[in-house]
Amino acid sequence: MHVIWYTAMSMDGRIAGPDDDLSFLSHIKGDEEDAGSEFASFMSSIDGVIIGGSTMRWLLAHGESLPASGKPVWLVTRSSSLAAQVSALATDETPVHVVSGPLDPVVTAIADSGCSRLWVCGGGDVAGQLLAIDRIDEVVLTVAPVALGSGPALFDGGSLPDHEFTLQECRPYGNSARLVWVRSR
Amino acid sequence: MHVIWYTAMSMDGRIAGPDDDLSFLSHIKGDEEDAGSEFASFMSSIDGVIIGGSTMRWLLAHGESLPASGKPVWLVTRSSSLAAQVSALATDETPVHVVSGPLDPVVTAIADSGCSRLWVCGGGDVAGQLLAIDRIDEVVLTVAPVALGSGPALFDGGSLPDHEFTLQECRPYGNSARLVWVRSR
Repeated sequence: MHVIWYTAMSMDGRIAGPDDDLSFLSHIKGDEEDAGSEFASFMSSIDGVIIGGSTMRWLLAHGESLPASGKPVWLVTRSSSLAAQVSALATDETPVHVVSGPLDPVVTAIADSGCSRLWVCGGGDVAGQLLAIDRIDEVVLTVAPVALGSGPALFDGGSLPDHEFTLQECRPYGNSARLVWVRSR
Repeated sequence: MHVIWYTAMSMDGRIAGPDDDLSFLSHIKGDEEDAGSEFASFMSSIDGVIIGGSTMRWLLAHGESLPASGKPVWLVTRSSSLAAQVSALATDETPVHVVSGPLDPVVTAIADSGCSRLWVCGGGDVAGQLLAIDRIDEVVLTVAPVALGSGPALFDGGSLPDHEFTLQECRPYGNSARLVWVRSR
Protein backbone atom coordinates (compact mmCIF):
# COMPACT_ATOMS: atom_id res chain seq x y z
CA MET A 1 0.00 0.00 0.00
CA HIS A 2 1.26 3.43 -1.02
CA VAL A 3 0.64 6.14 1.61
CA ILE A 4 0.53 9.72 0.38
CA TRP A 5 0.64 12.87 2.51
CA TYR A 6 -0.91 15.38 0.12
CA THR A 7 -1.27 18.84 1.61
CA ALA A 8 -0.38 22.51 1.48
CA MET A 9 2.10 24.20 3.77
CA SER A 10 3.47 27.69 4.36
CA MET A 11 7.03 28.50 3.27
CA ASP A 12 8.08 27.83 6.86
CA GLY A 13 6.64 24.32 6.88
CA ARG A 14 3.36 24.86 8.70
CA ILE A 15 0.07 23.30 7.64
CA ALA A 16 -2.01 25.80 9.63
CA GLY A 17 -1.59 28.93 11.69
CA PRO A 18 -2.44 29.20 15.38
CA ASP A 19 -5.85 27.72 16.31
CA ASP A 20 -5.86 25.65 13.11
CA ASP A 21 -6.32 28.80 11.03
CA LEU A 22 -6.17 27.85 7.34
CA SER A 23 -6.51 31.35 5.90
CA PHE A 24 -2.96 31.13 4.50
CA LEU A 25 -4.42 28.89 1.80
CA SER A 26 -6.01 31.99 0.24
CA HIS A 27 -2.50 33.12 -0.81
CA ILE A 28 -2.11 30.10 -3.08
CA LYS A 29 -3.00 31.27 -6.56
CA GLY A 30 -2.31 28.56 -9.04
CA ASP A 31 -4.02 27.80 -12.27
CA GLU A 32 -7.45 27.21 -10.72
CA GLU A 33 -8.54 24.86 -13.45
CA ASP A 34 -5.31 22.90 -13.31
CA ALA A 35 -5.47 22.75 -9.51
CA GLY A 36 -9.05 21.49 -9.63
CA SER A 37 -8.37 18.81 -12.20
CA GLU A 38 -5.13 17.79 -10.51
CA PHE A 39 -6.83 17.33 -7.15
CA ALA A 40 -9.71 15.49 -8.82
CA SER A 41 -7.20 13.23 -10.53
CA PHE A 42 -5.43 12.61 -7.22
CA MET A 43 -8.74 11.89 -5.49
CA SER A 44 -9.76 9.40 -8.13
CA SER A 45 -6.40 7.65 -7.68
CA ILE A 46 -6.84 6.92 -3.98
CA ASP A 47 -9.00 4.28 -2.39
CA GLY A 48 -8.88 5.24 1.28
CA VAL A 49 -8.34 8.17 3.62
CA ILE A 50 -6.78 8.43 7.06
CA ILE A 51 -7.56 11.54 9.08
CA GLY A 52 -6.77 12.73 12.61
CA GLY A 53 -9.27 14.10 15.10
CA SER A 54 -8.22 17.76 14.81
CA THR A 55 -8.46 17.78 11.02
CA MET A 56 -11.83 16.00 11.15
CA ARG A 57 -13.12 18.53 13.71
CA TRP A 58 -11.94 21.36 11.43
CA LEU A 59 -13.86 19.87 8.49
CA LEU A 60 -17.03 19.54 10.57
CA ALA A 61 -16.68 23.06 12.02
CA HIS A 62 -16.41 24.45 8.49
CA GLY A 63 -19.51 22.76 7.17
CA GLU A 64 -17.65 19.97 5.46
CA SER A 65 -18.49 16.33 5.76
CA LEU A 66 -16.21 13.34 5.26
CA PRO A 67 -12.99 14.15 3.35
CA ALA A 68 -13.69 11.98 0.31
CA SER A 69 -17.08 10.75 -0.75
CA GLY A 70 -17.06 7.14 -1.88
CA LYS A 71 -13.76 6.29 -0.14
CA PRO A 72 -13.49 4.49 3.17
CA VAL A 73 -12.29 6.69 6.04
CA TRP A 74 -10.09 5.73 8.97
CA LEU A 75 -10.56 8.31 11.73
CA VAL A 76 -7.79 8.39 14.34
CA THR A 77 -9.36 9.54 17.60
CA ARG A 78 -9.88 8.55 21.20
CA SER A 79 -12.92 10.82 21.47
CA SER A 80 -16.11 8.79 21.63
CA SER A 81 -18.25 11.85 20.88
CA LEU A 82 -16.29 12.65 17.70
CA ALA A 83 -16.37 8.96 16.77
CA ALA A 84 -20.16 8.91 17.13
CA GLN A 85 -20.61 12.15 15.22
CA VAL A 86 -18.49 11.00 12.29
CA SER A 87 -19.83 7.44 12.28
CA ALA A 88 -23.30 8.91 11.81
CA LEU A 89 -22.08 10.32 8.46
CA ALA A 90 -21.02 6.93 7.18
CA THR A 91 -22.81 5.34 4.24
CA ASP A 92 -22.41 2.02 2.43
CA GLU A 93 -20.17 3.79 -0.11
CA THR A 94 -18.22 5.78 2.48
CA PRO A 95 -17.73 3.60 5.54
CA VAL A 96 -16.04 5.08 8.63
CA HIS A 97 -13.61 3.10 10.77
CA VAL A 98 -12.67 4.61 14.12
CA VAL A 99 -9.16 3.69 15.24
CA SER A 100 -6.74 4.70 17.99
CA GLY A 101 -3.48 3.61 19.53
CA PRO A 102 -0.30 2.72 17.61
CA LEU A 103 -0.71 3.22 13.87
CA ASP A 104 1.39 0.26 12.74
CA PRO A 105 -1.41 -2.35 13.09
CA VAL A 106 -3.91 0.21 11.82
CA VAL A 107 -1.97 0.68 8.57
CA THR A 108 -1.59 -3.09 8.20
CA ALA A 109 -5.34 -3.52 8.64
CA ILE A 110 -6.05 -0.81 6.07
CA ALA A 111 -3.77 -2.54 3.56
CA ASP A 112 -5.39 -5.90 4.37
CA SER A 113 -8.80 -4.39 3.62
CA GLY A 114 -7.67 -3.98 0.01
CA CYS A 115 -6.66 -0.31 0.01
CA SER A 116 -3.74 0.29 -2.36
CA ARG A 117 -3.38 4.09 -2.22
CA LEU A 118 -4.10 5.79 1.11
CA TRP A 119 -4.41 9.58 1.41
CA VAL A 120 -3.19 11.12 4.64
CA CYS A 121 -5.68 13.98 4.87
CA GLY A 122 -4.10 15.40 8.05
CA GLY A 123 -2.84 16.51 10.36
CA GLY A 124 0.86 16.82 11.11
CA ASP A 125 0.60 14.57 14.16
CA VAL A 126 -0.86 11.63 12.21
CA ALA A 127 1.71 12.24 9.46
CA GLY A 128 4.47 12.34 12.08
CA GLN A 129 3.29 9.06 13.61
CA LEU A 130 3.23 7.46 10.18
CA LEU A 131 6.70 8.73 9.32
CA ALA A 132 8.02 7.45 12.66
CA ILE A 133 7.02 3.92 11.59
CA ASP A 134 8.24 4.58 8.03
CA ARG A 135 4.79 4.33 6.47
CA ILE A 136 4.87 7.58 4.52
CA ASP A 137 5.73 6.74 0.91
CA GLU A 138 5.12 10.08 -0.77
CA VAL A 139 4.70 13.70 0.24
CA VAL A 140 2.95 16.00 -2.23
CA LEU A 141 3.29 19.63 -1.21
CA THR A 142 2.00 22.94 -2.40
CA VAL A 143 4.22 25.50 -0.69
CA ALA A 144 2.38 28.80 -0.19
CA PRO A 145 4.24 32.11 -0.66
CA VAL A 146 3.75 33.21 2.95
CA ALA A 147 5.31 32.44 6.33
CA LEU A 148 3.22 31.80 9.43
CA GLY A 149 5.71 31.83 12.32
CA SER A 150 3.64 29.45 14.43
CA GLY A 151 1.17 26.62 14.05
CA PRO A 152 1.40 22.87 13.46
CA ALA A 153 4.15 21.66 11.12
CA LEU A 154 4.07 19.25 8.18
CA PHE A 155 5.44 16.59 10.51
CA ASP A 156 4.89 16.96 14.24
CA GLY A 157 6.17 14.11 16.28
CA GLY A 158 9.18 14.59 18.48
CA SER A 159 12.43 13.61 16.91
CA LEU A 160 11.81 11.49 13.82
CA PRO A 161 14.21 8.90 12.47
CA ASP A 162 16.23 10.13 9.49
CA HIS A 163 14.32 8.58 6.62
CA GLU A 164 15.57 10.03 3.38
CA PHE A 165 13.29 11.00 0.49
CA THR A 166 13.92 11.46 -3.23
CA LEU A 167 12.82 14.69 -4.86
CA GLN A 168 10.51 13.61 -7.67
CA GLU A 169 9.05 16.96 -8.62
CA CYS A 170 10.14 20.53 -7.95
CA ARG A 171 8.49 23.27 -9.96
CA PRO A 172 6.60 26.54 -9.72
CA TYR A 173 2.88 26.00 -9.28
CA GLY A 174 1.10 29.27 -9.92
CA ASN A 175 2.59 31.62 -7.32
CA SER A 176 3.51 28.65 -5.12
CA ALA A 177 6.00 25.79 -5.27
CA ARG A 178 5.14 22.17 -5.90
CA LEU A 179 7.43 19.65 -4.24
CA VAL A 180 6.94 15.90 -4.44
CA TRP A 181 9.12 13.73 -2.21
CA VAL A 182 9.12 9.95 -2.54
CA ARG A 183 10.56 7.75 0.16
CA SER A 184 13.94 6.33 -0.88
CA ARG A 185 13.77 2.54 -0.48
CA MET B 1 19.32 47.62 2.21
CA HIS B 2 18.46 44.13 1.00
CA VAL B 3 18.10 41.57 3.81
CA ILE B 4 18.59 37.91 2.86
CA TRP B 5 17.71 34.88 4.98
CA TYR B 6 19.98 32.26 3.39
CA THR B 7 19.79 28.89 5.09
CA ALA B 8 18.96 25.21 4.84
CA MET B 9 15.84 23.61 6.22
CA SER B 10 14.32 20.15 6.48
CA MET B 11 11.35 19.25 4.28
CA ASP B 12 9.11 20.11 7.25
CA GLY B 13 10.51 23.62 7.58
CA ARG B 14 12.96 23.19 10.46
CA ILE B 15 16.42 24.73 10.52
CA ALA B 16 17.66 22.34 13.22
CA GLY B 17 16.54 19.31 15.16
CA PRO B 18 16.06 19.22 18.92
CA ASP B 19 18.96 20.79 20.88
CA ASP B 20 20.08 22.70 17.79
CA ASP B 21 21.20 19.44 16.17
CA LEU B 22 22.32 20.23 12.60
CA SER B 23 23.12 16.67 11.55
CA PHE B 24 20.26 16.77 9.01
CA LEU B 25 22.59 18.89 6.86
CA SER B 26 24.60 15.75 6.10
CA HIS B 27 21.66 14.53 3.97
CA ILE B 28 22.10 17.43 1.55
CA LYS B 29 24.13 16.09 -1.35
CA GLY B 30 24.36 18.66 -4.04
CA ASP B 31 27.08 19.27 -6.52
CA GLU B 32 29.78 19.98 -3.91
CA GLU B 33 31.76 22.21 -6.21
CA ASP B 34 28.69 24.12 -7.28
CA ALA B 35 27.53 24.47 -3.68
CA GLY B 36 30.93 25.75 -2.62
CA SER B 37 31.20 28.28 -5.40
CA GLU B 38 27.60 29.36 -4.99
CA PHE B 39 28.02 29.99 -1.28
CA ALA B 40 31.31 31.78 -1.94
CA SER B 41 29.58 33.93 -4.52
CA PHE B 42 26.78 34.71 -2.06
CA MET B 43 29.30 35.53 0.66
CA SER B 44 31.19 37.91 -1.59
CA SER B 45 27.90 39.64 -2.41
CA ILE B 46 27.04 40.57 1.18
CA ASP B 47 28.56 43.30 3.30
CA GLY B 48 27.16 42.53 6.73
CA VAL B 49 25.82 39.69 8.87
CA ILE B 50 23.17 39.59 11.59
CA ILE B 51 23.17 36.58 13.90
CA GLY B 52 21.22 35.58 16.99
CA GLY B 53 22.72 34.34 20.25
CA SER B 54 21.78 30.67 19.80
CA THR B 55 23.30 30.45 16.34
CA MET B 56 26.44 32.25 17.53
CA ARG B 57 26.74 29.86 20.48
CA TRP B 58 26.40 26.92 18.08
CA LEU B 59 29.23 28.28 15.92
CA LEU B 60 31.49 28.73 18.95
CA ALA B 61 30.63 25.29 20.35
CA HIS B 62 31.57 23.73 17.00
CA GLY B 63 34.95 25.38 16.77
CA GLU B 64 33.82 28.06 14.38
CA SER B 65 34.54 31.72 14.77
CA LEU B 66 32.59 34.68 13.38
CA PRO B 67 30.23 33.74 10.52
CA ALA B 68 31.95 35.77 7.80
CA SER B 69 35.51 36.98 7.91
CA GLY B 70 35.90 40.52 6.67
CA LYS B 71 32.21 41.43 7.12
CA PRO B 72 30.84 43.39 10.07
CA VAL B 73 28.70 41.32 12.44
CA TRP B 74 25.65 42.40 14.38
CA LEU B 75 25.11 39.98 17.25
CA VAL B 76 21.62 39.99 18.76
CA THR B 77 21.95 39.00 22.40
CA ARG B 78 21.22 40.17 25.91
CA SER B 79 23.96 37.92 27.33
CA SER B 80 26.91 39.99 28.48
CA SER B 81 29.15 36.93 28.66
CA LEU B 82 28.40 35.94 25.04
CA ALA B 83 28.81 39.59 24.02
CA ALA B 84 32.25 39.70 25.67
CA GLN B 85 33.32 36.36 24.19
CA VAL B 86 32.34 37.36 20.65
CA SER B 87 33.63 40.91 20.92
CA ALA B 88 37.03 39.45 21.75
CA LEU B 89 37.04 37.88 18.26
CA ALA B 90 36.51 41.21 16.52
CA THR B 91 39.22 42.66 14.30
CA ASP B 92 39.48 45.88 12.30
CA GLU B 93 38.24 43.97 9.23
CA THR B 94 35.51 42.10 11.09
CA PRO B 95 34.00 44.41 13.69
CA VAL B 96 31.34 43.08 16.07
CA HIS B 97 28.35 45.14 17.15
CA VAL B 98 26.30 43.78 20.04
CA VAL B 99 22.64 44.72 19.84
CA SER B 100 19.41 43.83 21.64
CA GLY B 101 15.83 44.97 21.91
CA PRO B 102 13.52 45.75 18.97
CA LEU B 103 15.19 45.07 15.63
CA ASP B 104 13.61 47.96 13.70
CA PRO B 105 16.14 50.60 14.88
CA VAL B 106 18.92 48.00 14.66
CA VAL B 107 18.20 47.38 10.98
CA THR B 108 18.00 51.10 10.32
CA ALA B 109 21.39 51.58 12.00
CA ILE B 110 22.92 48.75 9.95
CA ALA B 111 21.65 50.35 6.73
CA ASP B 112 22.92 53.76 7.88
CA SER B 113 26.36 52.23 8.43
CA GLY B 114 26.53 51.65 4.67
CA CYS B 115 25.55 47.98 4.50
CA SER B 116 23.63 47.24 1.29
CA ARG B 117 23.21 43.45 1.50
CA LEU B 118 22.72 41.91 4.94
CA TRP B 119 22.88 38.16 5.53
CA VAL B 120 20.61 36.76 8.21
CA CYS B 121 22.84 33.92 9.43
CA GLY B 122 20.24 32.67 11.95
CA GLY B 123 18.25 31.69 13.75
CA GLY B 124 14.54 31.36 13.17
CA ASP B 125 13.75 33.75 16.00
CA VAL B 126 15.83 36.60 14.53
CA ALA B 127 14.35 35.83 11.10
CA GLY B 128 10.85 35.85 12.62
CA GLN B 129 11.45 39.21 14.30
CA LEU B 130 12.72 40.63 11.01
CA LEU B 131 9.75 39.28 9.08
CA ALA B 132 7.37 40.72 11.68
CA ILE B 133 8.70 44.21 10.86
CA ASP B 134 8.77 43.37 7.13
CA ARG B 135 12.54 43.57 6.86
CA ILE B 136 13.13 40.22 5.15
CA ASP B 137 13.56 40.87 1.42
CA GLU B 138 14.69 37.47 0.23
CA VAL B 139 14.70 33.89 1.50
CA VAL B 140 17.17 31.49 -0.11
CA LEU B 141 16.47 27.92 0.92
CA THR B 142 18.06 24.57 0.43
CA VAL B 143 15.37 22.08 1.38
CA ALA B 144 16.89 18.83 2.65
CA PRO B 145 15.29 15.48 1.74
CA VAL B 146 14.50 14.56 5.35
CA ALA B 147 11.87 15.48 7.93
CA LEU B 148 12.77 16.30 11.53
CA GLY B 149 9.43 16.40 13.38
CA SER B 150 10.68 18.89 15.96
CA GLY B 151 13.15 21.72 16.31
CA PRO B 152 13.17 25.44 15.49
CA ALA B 153 11.40 26.51 12.29
CA LEU B 154 12.50 28.75 9.45
CA PHE B 155 10.44 31.51 11.02
CA ASP B 156 9.66 31.34 14.71
CA GLY B 157 7.80 34.27 16.06
CA GLY B 158 4.21 33.88 17.09
CA SER B 159 1.70 34.75 14.45
CA LEU B 160 3.39 36.72 11.68
CA PRO B 161 1.61 39.21 9.45
CA ASP B 162 0.72 37.84 6.02
CA HIS B 163 3.54 39.25 3.92
CA GLU B 164 3.45 37.63 0.51
CA PHE B 165 6.58 36.55 -1.36
CA THR B 166 7.26 35.90 -5.03
CA LEU B 167 8.83 32.61 -6.04
CA GLN B 168 11.96 33.57 -7.93
CA GLU B 169 13.65 30.19 -8.14
CA CYS B 170 12.36 26.64 -7.71
CA ARG B 171 14.58 23.82 -8.88
CA PRO B 172 16.23 20.57 -7.85
CA TYR B 173 19.58 21.17 -6.18
CA GLY B 174 21.45 17.91 -6.01
CA ASN B 175 19.13 15.67 -3.97
CA SER B 176 17.54 18.73 -2.37
CA ALA B 177 15.27 21.56 -3.51
CA ARG B 178 16.34 25.14 -3.99
CA LEU B 179 13.63 27.73 -3.35
CA VAL B 180 14.21 31.46 -3.55
CA TRP B 181 11.40 33.71 -2.32
CA VAL B 182 11.56 37.48 -2.81
CA ARG B 183 9.27 39.80 -0.88
CA SER B 184 6.48 41.14 -3.10
CA ARG B 185 6.53 44.95 -2.87
